[in-house]
Amino acid sequence: MNKGRVEAFTDAIVAIIMTIMVLEMKVPEGPSLKALFAERVYFFAYLISFFLIATTWYSHHYLFTHAKWISKRAFWANCIWLFMMSLSPVATGWIGAYPNSRTTAGFYLLVYVLWGLAFRLLVYSLIRDNSESRQQLQLLVQPKRSIFEMIAIVACLVAINFVPVLCIVILGLDGLFWIVYTPRESDKPNH
Amino acid sequence: MNKGRVEAFTDAIVAIIMTIMVLEMKVPEGPSLKALFAERVYFFAYLISFFLIATTWYSHHYLFTHAKWISKRAFWANCIWLFMMSLSPVATGWIGAYPNSRTTAGFYLLVYVLWGLAFRLLVYSLIRDNSESRQQLQLLVQPKRSIFEMIAIVACLVAINFVPVLCIVILGLDGLFWIVYTPRESDKPNH
Amino acid sequence: MNKGRVEAFTDAIVAIIMTIMVLEMKVPEGPSLKALFAERVYFFAYLISFFLIATTWYSHHYLFTHAKWISKRAFWANCIWLFMMSLSPVATGWIGAYPNSRTTAGFYLLVYVLWGLAFRLLVYSLIRDNSESRQQLQLLVQPKRSIFEMIAIVACLVAINFVPVLCIVILGLDGLFWIVYTPRESDKPNH
Amino acid sequence: MNKGRVEAFTDAIVAIIMTIMVLEMKVPEGPSLKALFAERVYFFAYLISFFLIATTWYSHHYLFTHAKWISKRAFWANCIWLFMMSLSPVATGWIGAYPNSRTTAGFYLLVYVLWGLAFRLLVYSLIRDNSESRQQLQLLVQPKRSIFEMIAIVACLVAINFVPVLCIVILGLDGLFWIVYTPRESDKPNH
Repeated sequence: MNKGRVEAFTDAIVAIIMTIMVLEMKVPEGPSLKALFAERVYFFAYLISFFLIATTWYSHHYLFTHAKWISKRAFWANCIWLFMMSLSPVATGWIGAYPNSRTTAGFYLLVYVLWGLAFRLLVYSLIRDNSESRQQLQLLVQPKRSIFEMIAIVACLVAINFVPVLCIVILGLDGLFWIVYTPRESDKPNH
Repeated sequence: MNKGRVEAFTDAIVAIIMTIMVLEMKVPEGPSLKALFAERVYFFAYLISFFLIATTWYSHHYLFTHAKWISKRAFWANCIWLFMMSLSPVATGWIGAYPNSRTTAGFYLLVYVLWGLAFRLLVYSLIRDNSESRQQLQLLVQPKRSIFEMIAIVACLVAINFVPVLCIVILGLDGLFWIVYTPRESDKPNH
Repeated sequence: MNKGRVEAFTDAIVAIIMTIMVLEMKVPEGPSLKALFAERVYFFAYLISFFLIATTWYSHHYLFTHAKWISKRAFWANCIWLFMMSLSPVATGWIGAYPNSRTTAGFYLLVYVLWGLAFRLLVYSLIRDNSESRQQLQLLVQPKRSIFEMIAIVACLVAINFVPVLCIVILGLDGLFWIVYTPRESDKPNH
Repeated sequence: MNKGRVEAFTDAIVAIIMTIMVLEMKVPEGPSLKALFAERVYFFAYLISFFLIATTWYSHHYLFTHAKWISKRAFWANCIWLFMMSLSPVATGWIGAYPNSRTTAGFYLLVYVLWGLAFRLLVYSLIRDNSESRQQLQLLVQPKRSIFEMIAIVACLVAINFVPVLCIVILGLDGLFWIVYTPRESDKPNH
């Protein structure tokens, strides 16, 4: 497919998902710091979700610079990944409204996991159609990365039973780790 | 016209339509699975609409890679198609709110049919201005495809009288069929 | 400036303005044709505004294919034009809610006129910096076109005093006239 | 990184932030000039925020035409800058709703300052990775500019104690000054 167009379409959807979460952040009711402070949990959840999406966009950018060819299969994997990501505003709004609930934290985690699985599907589709870049593309599904993700998810599952909102703290730290850890050369290809 | 710019403009509109449907999915009222479960019909309608739009985008991508020239006529057909698609969030929201109503299901079907007719108009406009790609462009309006669409619409009309919400199930299966059935080579041209 | 980037930025804003008007179209309250019918005025106002924006986009596309150079001055004229256009959803929502009011119709007309003046400013800025395309660019501010616009505005001003909502009908017909009348060759340049 | 894609992604986010502020401008309640007039403060705040974002976009465009290389570091600085900007709709909505409050004006100023600091971070990241364009990039963080910004912020801090809403007037004038004062040649590079 026309890679540039698939990228532009994907980017538009990602950009909208990132910013419609701001719409959920209500204008504080009353001109007081207290009213502003009432939004702190949602603000924090928004902050985490914003940067988790930016992290995944960075990986998507890395993938697409190494993949020469976007097949029909990869396009649909990309759509599934976008659909899962589009549930992020609802999950963020829900945990922001009820941060002390196992249900809302569990739902946030579920969306995160499904979204991650869809990303894996995308990576494998791209590998299958771009065998010449197999080595670079596989970096995103290397065992070290998978194990780390697994540990983060288990940590979330445990934390949810004590302090549910810790779930987004852990996922945020996980994202931060990947932002820092990703090799510097990951920004090299530029076509 | 500048094909790249028409594509980018179209993609931005399609991306927004796909994602504003998420805004209609309210944050559940209360931190319970029951509150989440109350959204299931809208969620399902959103899922179908999201992938129906993605399917049509895939066809649009196919068309525009084969069409060298976008005329004024084709531009306006494209706008009519976008306008019909822009009614999708309202139709989705309405059937999601009242899934057991013939009226809401009928409206969803009506929007779908008008949107399909506008797509046909776009295909014929492109064929008229790009006779050298006639063969590839015509694939999207081949009799087999038209008959299949017709059958799906009739099935919807019948189903609406018994279980209205079946309408989106049928259209969803129809979309899924086209995702799978579309020849693999449809992703080949990449300019 | 980087013309491609200014175009893409402009297109994203135009696309969002066109589609957020759909958000104003509420999901009908109740599963009846009557509830749907209650939205008819807003629907009609949305239809007109959607195609007026598409018409102006077409002209913008024509301008930018002929202008080689986007100066700082032209960029700011472009921003003023975008700002005026961004008032369109409010004007559309207001006349849709109160179609029998001189105030709402007058406001819609005012936004339309300011938007048109901003477009003129953009055309003159582009002419000043792209003298080699003066002839093609001037087509959009030729006397015939200006007189026609003037007549439409006067007709609106008169109509508002009798049947306010006629204002959008007249502007809609005006837009339709320009869609049809614009010379076929206006789609020729494609860079 | 792929500069074109980072630009397009950034532009989509900026465009959405600029236009979702329109959603906050409610359709006036009632068909009277009085109802329209009740929106005047928000309208004014929206006008200022719209053009402040456009001004910063212009600077971003200048930066990215001079920077050949977008590193991982610059990408994250860009994301922080986008995140700060995304708080603009809430700050604008809040000061629009309560213009006579020191808290809302102070919050608007705080968002503006954080946003400016994030922009500085972006400029320094780009300078570090594009030493060959150091001279052009440094123009945006030259002492003259910094001192001017400092004065504007101090003026805001003073004004907030007397007439809070003056804060956005001062920032608006500050933006206007930079629109006019930016050297004409800033639009020259076009790649």
